[in-house]
Amino acid sequence: MSPADIRTMIRDGQLTGPTAGHALGYAQANLAILKKEHAFDFLLFAQRNPKACPILDVIEPGDFAPNGISSGADIRTDLPKYRIYKQGELVDEVTDILDYWSDDLVCFLIGCSFSFENALLNNDIDVRHITERCNVPMFKTNIATTPAGMFEGPTVVSMRPILEKDIVRAVQVTSRFPSVHGAPLHIGNPQAIGIDDISKPDFGDSVTIHDGEVPVFWACGVTPQAIAMHVKPELMITHAPGHMFITDIRDEHFGII
Amino acid sequence: MSPADIRTMIRDGQLTGPTAGHALGYAQANLAILKKEHAFDFLLFAQRNPKACPILDVIEPGDFAPNGISSGADIRTDLPKYRIYKQGELVDEVTDILDYWSDDLVCFLIGCSFSFENALLNNDIDVRHITERCNVPMFKTNIATTPAGMFEGPTVVSMRPILEKDIVRAVQVTSRFPSVHGAPLHIGNPQAIGIDDISKPDFGDSVTIHDGEVPVFWACGVTPQAIAMHVKPELMITHAPGHMFITDIRDEHFGII
Repeated sequence: MSPADIRTMIRDGQLTGPTAGHALGYAQANLAILKKEHAFDFLLFAQRNPKACPILDVIEPGDFAPNGISSGADIRTDLPKYRIYKQGELVDEVTDILDYWSDDLVCFLIGCSFSFENALLNNDIDVRHITERCNVPMFKTNIATTPAGMFEGPTVVSMRPILEKDIVRAVQVTSRFPSVHGAPLHIGNPQAIGIDDISKPDFGDSVTIHDGEVPVFWACGVTPQAIAMHVKPELMITHAPGHMFITDIRDEHFGII
Repeated sequence: MSPADIRTMIRDGQLTGPTAGHALGYAQANLAILKKEHAFDFLLFAQRNPKACPILDVIEPGDFAPNGISSGADIRTDLPKYRIYKQGELVDEVTDILDYWSDDLVCFLIGCSFSFENALLNNDIDVRHITERCNVPMFKTNIATTPAGMFEGPTVVSMRPILEKDIVRAVQVTSRFPSVHGAPLHIGNPQAIGIDDISKPDFGDSVTIHDGEVPVFWACGVTPQAIAMHVKPELMITHAPGHMFITDIRDEHFGII
């Protein structure tokens, strides 16, 4: 099924779960919706922190068609699940946001690690949380983001254990995709970036690290959400974890050389 | 001399000419200053057209220290020459913009092709306008930019003649630098992108194309200025051609893998 077919199923309520594994090879996107008054600062924050917040598309204020990365889509209905935050508190989880929509909202679509995980798998590098059928482990770090306006806070990273022999290749493969988080932020020693216990992620699930494997950390698309929660805007709407927007763009189109 | 030393000389009026050849190996930046009311749309335009408008830094509204890419600099005094445009018309050329400064201005610093030209030279690929000591030839094309708000118009490209045997390497070398225009937009046939006469550039100077060479076209940092002129904002301030802002960042730091 094409990305458009899957979006139609989601819109019609026939697909309500996580989007991982659907439309393989097509990029999926994190969603963040903010009021127009915060849009410049948030876009600037993303521009200053491209590894954590790689922007795939921004919809014109008040509009809901992400035409830059999809055709015929409606951002208000085409994700399986949304979260509504007010003053940083989760107040609702919904399957469409028609009731919350207003003309002063701006939608940001942010690159997702699914894209570079496909590239790792295509290079025969195991992606542990896929093998173990759980969520990727994510950690708050002591690596500060570069602030913009009201937006500031720590970088969140995702961790994948990589065999020592595969580390160089993992750097090469993911470096090709700067618009979907790109190269790792850190290789090895979790303490060096403020992670005390690698078996206790702040978000997602813990995964096995085998002998001969090194934890490798990539900037995570949860960062902008974590930071927006931290600064408590009046209203913020996001996708529910794992319930992403499926784009019409093949992962490989984001490859730089 | 360090970039900071050169900026001090410029601020003190001891260096008033073009910045090409100064602080070799350090990135230089195009400047665009707009009123805050246009800042979100312009940043969005840049985000949607990253090859033509690769943002190196955006200064917080009303501030004039480009701390993201330099230390101790003042954007109002540290370029050798500025141009003041009102409603799209050039009304003044000045050596500082202290008289034009106000708290509702936002400064955008945009990547410049000097960075990837150094990379080409380091790979023994001739850069013709440097050899011929003139300005790079630039052309308006029929390649539309992706609009954002009021900003829209054609992409401007720069042209460098490349030996057939060097074309692959030129693509590889410049692809490494997506934040300073990156890979070419087009190779060969000028007519295909709306250029009728390769010997008559719209901006800059004509250069020799030898037998066995192919014209190669890169997105040009003149694009955002040409487009801002096209849409005629009340006020826009830019660098004067060739009179760039010298950053503290080495070119090589912009290399992706």
